[in-house]
Amino acid sequence: MNLIILFPKDRLDDLTYRLSDERADHILHILKAKVNDTVEIGLLNGQKGFARLTGIEKESITLIVENMSDPQPIKPTIDLICALPRPQTLKKVLAISACMGVRNIHLIRANRVEKSYFQSPLLEPENLNRYLIEGMAQGKLTRLPTVEIHDRFKPFVQELPERYSDSYKTLCKLLPDLCATESLQSFYKSYPDHILIAIGPEGGFVPFEAELFQSVGFVPISLGRSILRVENAVTAVLSHIELMIMMKN
Amino acid sequence: MNLIILFPKDRLDDLTYRLSDERADHILHILKAKVNDTVEIGLLNGQKGFARLTGIEKESITLIVENMSDPQPIKPTIDLICALPRPQTLKKVLAISACMGVRNIHLIRANRVEKSYFQSPLLEPENLNRYLIEGMAQGKLTRLPTVEIHDRFKPFVQELPERYSDSYKTLCKLLPDLCATESLQSFYKSYPDHILIAIGPEGGFVPFEAELFQSVGFVPISLGRSILRVENAVTAVLSHIELMIMMKN
Repeated sequence: MNLIILFPKDRLDDLTYRLSDERADHILHILKAKVNDTVEIGLLNGQKGFARLTGIEKESITLIVENMSDPQPIKPTIDLICALPRPQTLKKVLAISACMGVRNIHLIRANRVEKSYFQSPLLEPENLNRYLIEGMAQGKLTRLPTVEIHDRFKPFVQELPERYSDSYKTLCKLLPDLCATESLQSFYKSYPDHILIAIGPEGGFVPFEAELFQSVGFVPISLGRSILRVENAVTAVLSHIELMIMMKN
Repeated sequence: MNLIILFPKDRLDDLTYRLSDERADHILHILKAKVNDTVEIGLLNGQKGFARLTGIEKESITLIVENMSDPQPIKPTIDLICALPRPQTLKKVLAISACMGVRNIHLIRANRVEKSYFQSPLLEPENLNRYLIEGMAQGKLTRLPTVEIHDRFKPFVQELPERYSDSYKTLCKLLPDLCATESLQSFYKSYPDHILIAIGPEGGFVPFEAELFQSVGFVPISLGRSILRVENAVTAVLSHIELMIMMKN
C-alpha cells in the first residue's frame, strides 16, 4: 500500500477522515505512524497529498488531509479489452491494470472463455473495486478504472469504431499475438495519445476472433518469445508501452 | 501446460514414458488426446518433440516419444538476483522466470527481507522445482533454471565479479530502481549476450544495498512510471529485454 486511498464514506467533515479497516492497520503497524506524523494519501477519483494522523482511537484512526494537489494526467490513455479470465487471474489483471494506469477495462466473452466465469461473484462492482483499489494503492494512482462486462463477442468488437468514434482512426489498436513478428515499436512511431489493447484468453483468441479484431483495425504485435499467462501478458504489454514512452523522452 | 515435461522417473525404457499425475489428466481431459494422438513434450534439461499416446490404463497413460530435437539456445543468457520475497510472491517469481527463460536465480537476503522467509518449506528443491516446471511448461522450455539461496547480502554482492569472472566487465548489470531516469535502451546498445538483473524486495533495496550493487557495476534503470510489485517488476524487466531483442532484429 504505497498510497492510502480515502473514500467518501471515510469522511467526517471537509478535511477530516476516519479509518477503521486494513488501511488503519497499515498506517499504524506497517508505516508505524504516530500522532502528528503524515502519510501519503489520495482521494478516490480526486487529489493526492498527505494526511496528518490526529487521533488513534480504540478501533479507528483520525486523519486530517493537507497539501492536496491534482495528480498528473496519465498519458497515453490506455484501455484494455480482456477476454474474461478465471477469477484468480482476473484479480491479478485488475490489480496490475489499475497499478499501471489503465483507464477503462472491457471484460468480454470469447470462444475459449468458460461461460461460468460470467457468474462469478467477483464481477460484482464492490468485488472488482477491491482489486482495482489494491492496484491503485500499489501504483499511487487515485483514478478508479471503469470495468464493463460484455457477454457477446461479435457485437462488442463490431461496435468498437462507434464506441471510440471521436478518435477511432488515430487510436493505436494492439492485438498481442504469439504469431506476430512485429513489436510494439513498429506501430508506435506517432506516439499515440490513446491505446486500445485486446488480450485473449488462455489459449488465445480463435482465428475468427483475431480476424474480427483485425477487421476493425487491430494490429498483431509480439510480446516476445514466451507464451505468457494472461496476467503476465497484460503486464508485458503495459511494460512495453512504458519502455516506448521512456524512449520517446 | 503448453508443453508436457517428462522426467527421468517417468521413463520405462528408451522411448517409453508412463505418467499418472496431473500431466496425464491434462493430456486426457484438457488436450482430450486419444490413443495414437501426439502431444508436444520436452525432456527435463533435454530435447523437445512429440509423444504418441499408446496406452490409457486405469490410473496412468503410456507415451512413446518421437521427432525429438535440441531446443534453440536462449540468448541472451539472463540471470536473476532477487531479494527473497514472501512465499506467495516467490511462487510467481519462479514461474515467470522459468517461463521467460531465466537461467540462474539467486535468492538473497536484504534489509527489507523478513528473516522468516528463509525458513519457508518452499525453499526445498522439490517445492521450488514445482513452480519452475510450471513456468517451463507454460513457456515451452525444457531447461530447469538453477536456484541458489544466499543468506548474507554483502559477501554475495562483493563476490559477484569473481562468480562471473570470465565475463564480468561485459556483463549487462541492471538494477531496476524507482528513481532511475534511464531506460534499458540506454544500456543495451551493445546487445549483450549475458544480463544480470537485481530485483529488490517490496519497498526496494535500502541505499547501502543499492550503492553496493552500483559499486560492482550495476546500473539503475527505470521500468516505467509505476511502483510494481516484485513479481510484476520481474515480468516488466524481462519484457523490456524481449522488446529490445525484437527491436534489434
